[in-house]
Amino acid sequence: MNYWEYIRVEELLALQGGFDNDESKVNDDETLFIVVHQIYELWFKLVLRELSTARDIFRQNPVPDIQLATATRRFKRVIAIFEQAISHFKVMETLTTRDYLEFRDRLIPASGFQSAQLREIEILLGLDDAIRIPLGREGSYKEALKGADGKPSPATKRVEDRIASGPSLKQLVYEWLARTPIDGPSSDASATRFLEEIVASHRSEITARVKLAEQQALTAEDVERLRARYEKEIVFAEAFLMGEDDPDADAETRSFRRRVRAAIVFLESYRELPRLTWPRELVDSLIEMEQTMLIWRQRHARMVERVIGRRTGTGGSAGVDYLDQTALRYRVFGDVWGVRGLLLRKPTLPALRHEGDYHFRIED
Amino acid sequence: MNYWEYIRVEELLALQGGFDNDESKVNDDETLFIVVHQIYELWFKLVLRELSTARDIFRQNPVPDIQLATATRRFKRVIAIFEQAISHFKVMETLTTRDYLEFRDRLIPASGFQSAQLREIEILLGLDDAIRIPLGREGSYKEALKGADGKPSPATKRVEDRIASGPSLKQLVYEWLARTPIDGPSSDASATRFLEEIVASHRSEITARVKLAEQQALTAEDVERLRARYEKEIVFAEAFLMGEDDPDADAETRSFRRRVRAAIVFLESYRELPRLTWPRELVDSLIEMEQTMLIWRQRHARMVERVIGRRTGTGGSAGVDYLDQTALRYRVFGDVWGVRGLLLRKPTLPALRHEGDYHFRIED
Amino acid sequence: MNYWEYIRVEELLALQGGFDNDESKVNDDETLFIVVHQIYELWFKLVLRELSTARDIFRQNPVPDIQLATATRRFKRVIAIFEQAISHFKVMETLTTRDYLEFRDRLIPASGFQSAQLREIEILLGLDDAIRIPLGREGSYKEALKGADGKPSPATKRVEDRIASGPSLKQLVYEWLARTPIDGPSSDASATRFLEEIVASHRSEITARVKLAEQQALTAEDVERLRARYEKEIVFAEAFLMGEDDPDADAETRSFRRRVRAAIVFLESYRELPRLTWPRELVDSLIEMEQTMLIWRQRHARMVERVIGRRTGTGGSAGVDYLDQTALRYRVFGDVWGVRGLLLRKPTLPALRHEGDYHFRIED
Amino acid sequence: MNYWEYIRVEELLALQGGFDNDESKVNDDETLFIVVHQIYELWFKLVLRELSTARDIFRQNPVPDIQLATATRRFKRVIAIFEQAISHFKVMETLTTRDYLEFRDRLIPASGFQSAQLREIEILLGLDDAIRIPLGREGSYKEALKGADGKPSPATKRVEDRIASGPSLKQLVYEWLARTPIDGPSSDASATRFLEEIVASHRSEITARVKLAEQQALTAEDVERLRARYEKEIVFAEAFLMGEDDPDADAETRSFRRRVRAAIVFLESYRELPRLTWPRELVDSLIEMEQTMLIWRQRHARMVERVIGRRTGTGGSAGVDYLDQTALRYRVFGDVWGVRGLLLRKPTLPALRHEGDYHFRIED
Repeated sequence: MNYWEYIRVEELLALQGGFDNDESKVNDDETLFIVVHQIYELWFKLVLRELSTARDIFRQNPVPDIQLATATRRFKRVIAIFEQAISHFKVMETLTTRDYLEFRDRLIPASGFQSAQLREIEILLGLDDAIRIPLGREGSYKEALKGADGKPSPATKRVEDRIASGPSLKQLVYEWLARTPIDGPSSDASATRFLEEIVASHRSEITARVKLAEQQALTAEDVERLRARYEKEIVFAEAFLMGEDDPDADAETRSFRRRVRAAIVFLESYRELPRLTWPRELVDSLIEMEQTMLIWRQRHARMVERVIGRRTGTGGSAGVDYLDQTALRYRVFGDVWGVRGLLLRKPTLPALRHEGDYHFRIED
Repeated sequence: MNYWEYIRVEELLALQGGFDNDESKVNDDETLFIVVHQIYELWFKLVLRELSTARDIFRQNPVPDIQLATATRRFKRVIAIFEQAISHFKVMETLTTRDYLEFRDRLIPASGFQSAQLREIEILLGLDDAIRIPLGREGSYKEALKGADGKPSPATKRVEDRIASGPSLKQLVYEWLARTPIDGPSSDASATRFLEEIVASHRSEITARVKLAEQQALTAEDVERLRARYEKEIVFAEAFLMGEDDPDADAETRSFRRRVRAAIVFLESYRELPRLTWPRELVDSLIEMEQTMLIWRQRHARMVERVIGRRTGTGGSAGVDYLDQTALRYRVFGDVWGVRGLLLRKPTLPALRHEGDYHFRIED
Repeated sequence: MNYWEYIRVEELLALQGGFDNDESKVNDDETLFIVVHQIYELWFKLVLRELSTARDIFRQNPVPDIQLATATRRFKRVIAIFEQAISHFKVMETLTTRDYLEFRDRLIPASGFQSAQLREIEILLGLDDAIRIPLGREGSYKEALKGADGKPSPATKRVEDRIASGPSLKQLVYEWLARTPIDGPSSDASATRFLEEIVASHRSEITARVKLAEQQALTAEDVERLRARYEKEIVFAEAFLMGEDDPDADAETRSFRRRVRAAIVFLESYRELPRLTWPRELVDSLIEMEQTMLIWRQRHARMVERVIGRRTGTGGSAGVDYLDQTALRYRVFGDVWGVRGLLLRKPTLPALRHEGDYHFRIED
Repeated sequence: MNYWEYIRVEELLALQGGFDNDESKVNDDETLFIVVHQIYELWFKLVLRELSTARDIFRQNPVPDIQLATATRRFKRVIAIFEQAISHFKVMETLTTRDYLEFRDRLIPASGFQSAQLREIEILLGLDDAIRIPLGREGSYKEALKGADGKPSPATKRVEDRIASGPSLKQLVYEWLARTPIDGPSSDASATRFLEEIVASHRSEITARVKLAEQQALTAEDVERLRARYEKEIVFAEAFLMGEDDPDADAETRSFRRRVRAAIVFLESYRELPRLTWPRELVDSLIEMEQTMLIWRQRHARMVERVIGRRTGTGGSAGVDYLDQTALRYRVFGDVWGVRGLLLRKPTLPALRHEGDYHFRIED
């Protein structure tokens, strides 16, 4: 076996023919444009494999202890890949406005929005369809993936297959979190008791903060304003942690959310306990992974604004605004993000009753 | 002279005493927090020096030919510095939520919003006060810079001195742009004639694009919708380029804007002409510089969201939302950004009447 | 407390007066030069705190289970910091040769080589003095830290205090590794038995590889050459793993090395076993940390070569060559690097007799 | 046209079948390994297009003034691409030693050394065959590109075609530099006179530096040692600048080198002169481009050392050492690097007699 056979170099380098599938008609700028998109698709392929493998780990019940570090490494790899993807926009920006316009119109209605793999990543992660930002075009994102004749395309097939391939990473990770024993048996009762203590700590923290504000010689109005804001915060915190933030949710859903959120608070708060270190690393890597994707979305918006300004996208989207809005709104692991705003400093954490259960010794 | 005297190492390493000015009471996490902020202030000092030097170049009329490459290099240096600043958030993110909370409350009401130098950068660039996003606190950003006793502070002094130090970079660069000879003498007439030809090219581009849409078998409604959108775009483009986008502006202001915008279109469109290459590099580096600052703002938002979630900031701001909104709204060089969305591809550019004036020979 | 008091902004921004301690005599280029060095010193301060904290964790015997993830996080933070440091050279490179030369001669004999903190980092890590590359000047690196009058300086004091502050990270980590129980009790016998099995696996791997070479129709000379090289490799591998690579070492030293190296092979080879995941993360982060420092050294060489070419350094060093040589030669964790070249693929690893000892359950 | 047709998504994502051309037999780690190499090949394709376009600009005599900024932009794009390539090693490093070993042996004798495009880049730039570092295998780098049967391969064809495609970028850029008029007509006499003045300035700089050393109370031996070193430096500088550094070179070659080197000194020294700014940018971007490739080579060495240690490469090379040595030794634009070490600070530069010839006005 030789390098060029293994890497399929000749076939790979024959895929930059563009519109007419004729490389002699494609100038350097358009070649760059095509290649950067191809590189994105290659990275996305890796991301999908990694996420899929990690997802399958969480299909197991229980998740074997030996596989949590493995799953975390998958997420770290996805993070490393998206960090590459973020910096590729620097290459794209070597394309000036005028040069990009030379071939831009020919692309209509093709658009990066038609990247099936990016949609697959969102599906596999578990992005809720209800929070998707609509494109300028009518219909769902799936419309954009249809062929010119309105029929299903290879892109459609990819997305449909992915939807059919099983539950999302989010769904399965949340189920695993809901099973976490919280300072006692794995139960709603343990989770609830733990959360009650956490909420009490929040209350005393906020009381102290208001007192601090009073001492710092702000005006009475300022103190009142802060007190009102903090009161609102603690009411929100309690409702969120207790899974009571959605009046339409049924009792089972509330209990599930409560247990998920209790588990996240628990893992983040007592992360040094040896049996909790990997679960906590895993949860933290979900945040870092999603953050990296959000940075990618915002960096994408900045590249588009720089190269073509605030024009309508080739696929008919609102361009820069659409991209910026996705970054502000898309959050897959909303419960993990929500908890992040509600963690407590160490001295205020409740003492555990069963701390010993979470230790183990390496040097015996 | 020795390294430690030249760099002032000992004095520098004695500034991390924190709240009590006693390093033994500051743990590793808080030391990191302090040092990263100090590093930001050091970078900001460099940025202010570079921007100030560049601004002074444009105080001259005419700007000596020999100094345009120099000014551009200043902006490139600012870009290089902000790229460092962007990546420092990765270090800050090694601070976990729980660890940051250990010392966060002690900081209230201190806040990164009190960085006088960041405000100075905005002032020196020429950020319009009217588009500033208000903090949670009442009053302008200057309120936040006052001491605890409500009296002017060193931060106040920095900002006041900067405001008094002269016109902004934006003001002076725009005046220089307005003097650019546009394919003829430096005059409103040349600018207007040139812009009329540019608007005509826009019209024919859009006509072609609508025709394309019709051919591509979209529904009649889609075609109509696109036609309406494009018509709106051309009306907007003409008003913007001609300086007629603000009904309240007087004739002189309109003429000034027209000439500024004509110059930007001209420089970007004919950038290879030897006498235009540096002016165009300079204008492009303004965009890149502002873009880099926007990326820094968004990356800042992502760091804060990751470390503490959507809490109220220590200075009373709306935290993540405030930071994200500044990135969406703050644009210093609005005319340059506006033009970027209105450039044309090369084959549609009007032929110049005086192209010869913009050439020179290197190899004689 | 305000931001400017907490961060000590005014004092910090008053330290860029250079040679005459008079900022008005320091141009923008030299200010940049000073500030970048100050930023390096600030980062180094953080690195020293983190390494010192990590070192102290390993002063304990046994190292509490709860602290291994903490130590690893320290190393990850050092890595994040050195990654910043690597990219700062891009800012330094905005200084052109001609502009740097404007003030370079005034600096003689000051030199980055006089950074006491960089020497402290090397000392704290445990860089062996015997592998240090000598500067052009006579005497040890400590000579370079003396004052102009040849007397001890603040830099001397820093380095001496660091040397006196206790054993190096390397020494303590190696002692902890030597205590690791290797598939049985913590003993030389367990380590030796394990290494014998590893060496046997190496032998069969190499036999297979030679067979492969024969099949691949290389010339007989090629096969012979490869066979000789592989034989040399296996002899080297065995001597290294067994701690027999240094004929001058006494029996105790050999045993210590054997146990250290056995532990590294063991941790890397069975890293998924729950009780081994953190120790393995820790060992891997040592490699990543040292790698990042080497990348920093090489990037430093490339910056110097770009800005001033292959001149003699201001401190009298051989400049670029000196920097490149340090990267090729300086390895603190030589045993970890050595083992990296001797790991085996999973299917060839010996089966553990006591695998059960290394498991634990998270979901009970 | 749709995105998936334009980008050739389906064909692209079908090229990761590895050894058996069967993706189901390729695990996630190997897929990553294949994809990263494919991404490198795609970037290399872009680099080759950009370098080829830039090279063709220099085929013209004279080079049209309008194209120097264009050529510089090509190099800037190559730089942006190699910066991506540098950071991809971070993704590769998510592959641990043990995991890479799972499939490494199957690859023998395939090796990254068989990347024809990387060889093409070196050829197109103009890397001198005489300085190439030999692999472990006998014969030239071309041997490594042959098929298993010893016959020419697609890789061979690529390299041969590239060699036949015309002179190197180095050759043509040097010819353009040799034609640069140096403060007078384009002639050997102008170049020589200019260099004589430069050498005289070097002499007085060095005299001053020795005086400085004497004052700084170093020992008499230190002063003598420095004086001897500086004397050696000035002798070397004169020989190099005057093109007399190679006793075997004929008069024509010496004159050519003299003129090339004079042009580089001239452009770097008087870079603000408006007619020199782009030629200087271009020369500086050659240095930056080559530097970025060297950083890529060293970073490559660090990745290999981290993942597999100091093993023999799959292609039979000496692995890490081979890669490190290429970075130390490979320099395409040796004359530009050489001059970088011999530039002078501004106050010591000779006054130009014809400075007016290098000005032009932008604002008339």
